[in-house]
Amino acid sequence: MSGERPVDPIEQLVGLLAKLPGLGRRSARRAALRMLMQPERVMLPLAGALQAAAAAVQPCRVCGNLDARNPCGICRDPQRDHGLICVVEGVSELWALERAHAHRGLYHVLGGTLSALGGVGPDDLAVQPLLARIDGAEPKVEEVILALPATVDGATTAHYLSDRLAGSGVRVTRLAQGVPMGGALDVLDEGTLAAALKARRSF
Amino acid sequence: MSGERPVDPIEQLVGLLAKLPGLGRRSARRAALRMLMQPERVMLPLAGALQAAAAAVQPCRVCGNLDARNPCGICRDPQRDHGLICVVEGVSELWALERAHAHRGLYHVLGGTLSALGGVGPDDLAVQPLLARIDGAEPKVEEVILALPATVDGATTAHYLSDRLAGSGVRVTRLAQGVPMGGALDVLDEGTLAAALKARRSF
Ligand SMILES: [Zn+2]
Ligand SMILES: [Zn+2]
Repeated sequence: MSGERPVDPIEQLVGLLAKLPGLGRRSARRAALRMLMQPERVMLPLAGALQAAAAAVQPCRVCGNLDARNPCGICRDPQRDHGLICVVEGVSELWALERAHAHRGLYHVLGGTLSALGGVGPDDLAVQPLLARIDGAEPKVEEVILALPATVDGATTAHYLSDRLAGSGVRVTRLAQGVPMGGALDVLDEGTLAAALKARRSF
Repeated sequence: MSGERPVDPIEQLVGLLAKLPGLGRRSARRAALRMLMQPERVMLPLAGALQAAAAAVQPCRVCGNLDARNPCGICRDPQRDHGLICVVEGVSELWALERAHAHRGLYHVLGGTLSALGGVGPDDLAVQPLLARIDGAEPKVEEVILALPATVDGATTAHYLSDRLAGSGVRVTRLAQGVPMGGALDVLDEGTLAAALKARRSF
């Protein structure tokens, strides 16, 4: 705490904890102190879990989900409907849908939405991998659900994908209205998400 | 995410992050996801910082502060007034006073307050080490500031310590009124803390 030392391990720890979303500097200090009083209980297990996750977790080469297996546990689950693909903006939205237990098919993580202002074009997203995946799919993909945010960019992206999928023989649907305008999917309550998914309609 | 696996590194990480004070399960998930997308940026440095802090940080054998050096940086700082000891409930309060730059002396961490209901007696706190420390101090301790919480237990503890120090020739003071009733020191704004310390009066 004296400020003259070059690298203080407590300051270092507080600084890194404060970078986590949801933790300000005050909470980071409290968390560091709580852990320092019983290092064996959370501190060393957390260090181990961070290293284990960093070493094991990677994006699924099929869908883009983050998982310790590749392809991920969802993609390799024979119980799930492999003819149904839900397209999401990111892994956060995928996890939100999984928590809602609303979707029994597979996913495809786009990695963002098209954005004229943000300079995000189709080549910046996993659009080509989606088309290739559908093209070569065995069994055939019957339906693609566009579970994109109810924003201008989300709607643009949905229209773009719908156009690209026209003529592929795949049914393209989107989430039912019920997702509030401008709302990010991953902060929605699970009931709303489940209802919107269930009442999805053709694009 | 599929639930059948025995130990999923992501679930493990989220579970441990959710134990940090200030992070609920939702924030823990968001933090895990943010880190997993760029493991090199925060995840591995944080793992290293946790291990370094767990290995290096220990309670100061003189004052009870947590620090990478023992005695701690405060106790070994020749610029500080070694004749002035501020008694605090815990390390959290010590750090709060340090952030307020309000105290130029040393500290003594009690490790709690006396509590009849909680079954905390003098032997459960660092009372004896405080008396021994004052007894053998060179240079002599001139003043002990009781910076204890403005609660019933805090007041009981202050009175008890004041009694034990009576006759030792040490001046015993406490923080000025200004600390709100029932208020924990470590959530007070720094100005209030600094003012209360400056306006301290004899016990
Ligand atoms: Zn996958
Ligand atoms: Zn010390």
